[in-house]
Amino acid sequence: MIFHQLFEKDSSTYTYILADEVSREGIIIDPVFEMVERDLKLIEELGIRLLYTIETHVHADHITGSGKIRTITGAKSVVGKYSGAECADIFLEHNQVLKFGSHEITALETPGHTNGCTSYLVGNRVFTGDALLIRGCGRTDFQQGSAEKLWHSLSEVLFKLPLHTLVYPGHDYRGHTSSSIQQEIRWNPRTAKGKDGFIDIMQNLKLDQPKRIHEAVPANLECGNIKKDSEAT
Amino acid sequence: MIFHQLFEKDSSTYTYILADEVSREGIIIDPVFEMVERDLKLIEELGIRLLYTIETHVHADHITGSGKIRTITGAKSVVGKYSGAECADIFLEHNQVLKFGSHEITALETPGHTNGCTSYLVGNRVFTGDALLIRGCGRTDFQQGSAEKLWHSLSEVLFKLPLHTLVYPGHDYRGHTSSSIQQEIRWNPRTAKGKDGFIDIMQNLKLDQPKRIHEAVPANLECGNIKKDSEAT
Repeated sequence: MIFHQLFEKDSSTYTYILADEVSREGIIIDPVFEMVERDLKLIEELGIRLLYTIETHVHADHITGSGKIRTITGAKSVVGKYSGAECADIFLEHNQVLKFGSHEITALETPGHTNGCTSYLVGNRVFTGDALLIRGCGRTDFQQGSAEKLWHSLSEVLFKLPLHTLVYPGHDYRGHTSSSIQQEIRWNPRTAKGKDGFIDIMQNLKLDQPKRIHEAVPANLECGNIKKDSEAT
Repeated sequence: MIFHQLFEKDSSTYTYILADEVSREGIIIDPVFEMVERDLKLIEELGIRLLYTIETHVHADHITGSGKIRTITGAKSVVGKYSGAECADIFLEHNQVLKFGSHEITALETPGHTNGCTSYLVGNRVFTGDALLIRGCGRTDFQQGSAEKLWHSLSEVLFKLPLHTLVYPGHDYRGHTSSSIQQEIRWNPRTAKGKDGFIDIMQNLKLDQPKRIHEAVPANLECGNIKKDSEAT
């Protein structure tokens, strides 16, 4: 399996490129608009034929590169069914699977940060977007966020994965790049005090709104303001 | 094998923690002074007994956390024989090996960015410090740098490793986290034009000096200004 983790500094966002080493069919998860050139250069160098550009959710802190990548490469854009991003080509429900080469990517609905948040399992790696962060989780105070739903997504979906599953989040702000389900069950301070403790923490974070939310959310509902060819005016 | 890559944003430095999953004996490569608390927290959570804190070279852009880590954990500090950092406990020559659990780390002398630059091979991963960067390499215009020596280190040492060896550099400024020897042989623009082309590129970079060089180099020659207990005054 070809696997590359990429970082965008301004929003501390991780993008992931995965591909089959033999067939060279590949996917990209959570590309950032400003980094598309970097990502496509790597995809070209590695000889990857990109099948899907996949979003974990409608981001509030950066604009997705999915529409731009779709236009340039012909990859299909993929989102969770409840994301609200009607611009996409494929809408996945819980446990739905896409294939690239001999590999499978399985959608896991993990709402709570947003209502349409979806994690993706590929072999022993899970890409958790903003549902589960390393020793943290996404906030739940906008975009139909719900601490109760996020608790369920963490405790009943992600924390039920095999303990050695590697966790690759949508962001990290302290320079961590990966974790494991076992580490997060044991060391995530937000989930350490059970459901009531979690909801209490989430309802009292008192965070400022993301700087780019009013620009990013509407743009991301349209795949980064790049509509499908058929809809372009 | 336990493996964690960690990032420090201000100097775009990567730190690496590796450990044996059974014995929990481990090492840290290129810790950053300001991030020691983060790194030691992870080491504690993972139950790692740190044997060595290892430097790829005397850095000019940030202060090492090695002395601080040595003081707190008792780990031995390790550098290349020609680094000039006399503060360290162990000085490795080309092909010398240290063990942690059932794993080995092999020193590979790769001078050119500095005269004492050392890369480290662990299984199919090589930690190249500033000798080989992703699609780049360290500059050669201070600290006894030599484009000719760096060309030799790249073409005759690192590029002779097995093609699928994963490359983990000391820095990346564009958000890449890893590469492979195969990718760098094929796509590194600095080495693409042969020895003369390489030396020509390196002698004409016209870079500003690193902002912290006058603070960092003398501090790093003393393991981050933390001397051995026996030398403390």
